[in-house]
Amino acid sequence: MTRIRITEVGPRDGLQNEANVVPTEAKVTFVNALNASGVDEIEVSGFVHPKWVPQLADAADVFGQLERAPGIVYSALVPNEKGLERAIEAGVDKIAVFTAASETFNRHNINASIGESIRRFQPVMKRAKVEGLPVRGYVSTAFHCPYEGKIAPDQVVPVIERLLELGVDEISIGDTIGQASPPEVRALLDAVLTKLDPERVVLHCHDTYGMAIANALTAWEGYGVTRFDSSAGGLGGCPYAPGAAGNVATEDLVYALRASGTDTNVDEAAVVKAAQEIEPHLSRPLNSRLSRVLAEPA
Amino acid sequence: MTRIRITEVGPRDGLQNEANVVPTEAKVTFVNALNASGVDEIEVSGFVHPKWVPQLADAADVFGQLERAPGIVYSALVPNEKGLERAIEAGVDKIAVFTAASETFNRHNINASIGESIRRFQPVMKRAKVEGLPVRGYVSTAFHCPYEGKIAPDQVVPVIERLLELGVDEISIGDTIGQASPPEVRALLDAVLTKLDPERVVLHCHDTYGMAIANALTAWEGYGVTRFDSSAGGLGGCPYAPGAAGNVATEDLVYALRASGTDTNVDEAAVVKAAQEIEPHLSRPLNSRLSRVLAEPA
Repeated sequence: MTRIRITEVGPRDGLQNEANVVPTEAKVTFVNALNASGVDEIEVSGFVHPKWVPQLADAADVFGQLERAPGIVYSALVPNEKGLERAIEAGVDKIAVFTAASETFNRHNINASIGESIRRFQPVMKRAKVEGLPVRGYVSTAFHCPYEGKIAPDQVVPVIERLLELGVDEISIGDTIGQASPPEVRALLDAVLTKLDPERVVLHCHDTYGMAIANALTAWEGYGVTRFDSSAGGLGGCPYAPGAAGNVATEDLVYALRASGTDTNVDEAAVVKAAQEIEPHLSRPLNSRLSRVLAEPA
Repeated sequence: MTRIRITEVGPRDGLQNEANVVPTEAKVTFVNALNASGVDEIEVSGFVHPKWVPQLADAADVFGQLERAPGIVYSALVPNEKGLERAIEAGVDKIAVFTAASETFNRHNINASIGESIRRFQPVMKRAKVEGLPVRGYVSTAFHCPYEGKIAPDQVVPVIERLLELGVDEISIGDTIGQASPPEVRALLDAVLTKLDPERVVLHCHDTYGMAIANALTAWEGYGVTRFDSSAGGLGGCPYAPGAAGNVATEDLVYALRASGTDTNVDEAAVVKAAQEIEPHLSRPLNSRLSRVLAEPA
């Protein structure tokens, strides 16, 4: 059976838009609880400017305090050389650089054109290679943009090509506002998979419109995509997207992928337990199907 | 574009397991609000014994008081000849008989074997034909049973064949506990569609495990199934299934089907508005993605 690879992005993507400031200790407890869930990678935080994302200002402290479990990759977002320097000091296993397929979104999100953002990655990539760090490249708004509407595959492919030229190891394709549908997933993967193998593609679904599971299964069943991003308890959400739903919930995604014939190490109950550790610090309740199923007696 | 046909089952399936007794007036207001949503059929209630489902004891009153909108089919569950008599007096447009693919579930649910339940339908079907009433046949637990576990397609097909022999117009295949996956939907439809055309198949998904949208899109995209059951706001749930999620939410289903290239008359916002009419009378809050998206400013 094909083994699925889950990157748990709850501690970073799930928390970065949370209005409450979550104590460092709670983040560490969350990551440590996730260690027991069987996820393959935990995106712990981001070494971004604290003024830009105050919630992630304690990235180095979280890395310093978390317990490392064997076999789990502890990664972090890195926007520039300074962030990389901090990430290396903190002992990250892997970094992620990020841009978007929509110029307008990128401008709003990181105040740079797509081209500028990618140029900033050049020295980051060079140094990461010297340090032997694997690099993920995020491409946000790969299907729809809250400003520009529908994004065509031929707007996404050139961005991916430039990231690949820089030496990125995997590409995480983001349905940032959660409006993608299976036909759109197929259209984009048809285009993208002419440039790289499915093993290097990660699908990053948000479940705002309830499409995430259908989209993830389309990518796996139709294209052999085996890497997915998700957050415990469905934490998170894009500040520019309406609706309370955030990343697809790890427990729901894992349930769906296993039910559809794949193999995964992840234990849904352990994921829900980890999410329950962080829930008291959040302004929203958990929002996954499995967290409800597992909360009630069978 | 293919036109999707939605049967809104919220007033019956959505309410029948609700612990609070919902006032008749609130049910009538709910159905009247659904009239504006563009659904094709509303399963208004069931003419079942009031001792068995007290929530539906006012079926005749709801039919007597609702406003009928042109083009909408107002249907009801009918278990036997007595129920049919009451349904005809109330002026239903269509009836639904019901059995299951699992003997144990059928025994728990209606205290009859599958064979016995189908024999009871014979006089009901005869009379319905005389009255010119279309008849739906429900087959519950068509994928999984809370008592027997996985149900094989070859347990489902004979039940469907017997209902077809009786003259049922359409078959509603129920994923009663919400554990079906796309491969299981394919396996069952591969078998079922050798016996009847996809136009006569209805998929009735529950979203307990978050699989409903993926399953519905699998049936539409892979098999041309165009008829679906759903409930406004995701009301309902099976009393024998753990977890709070009920029927797939009409607004989420319609969004997903439209995003995947089908045509539907249904207005998601009107569905959410109808669900909000009934929500104060329920013990659970609404549980759909679209109800959250539409509740927040874009």
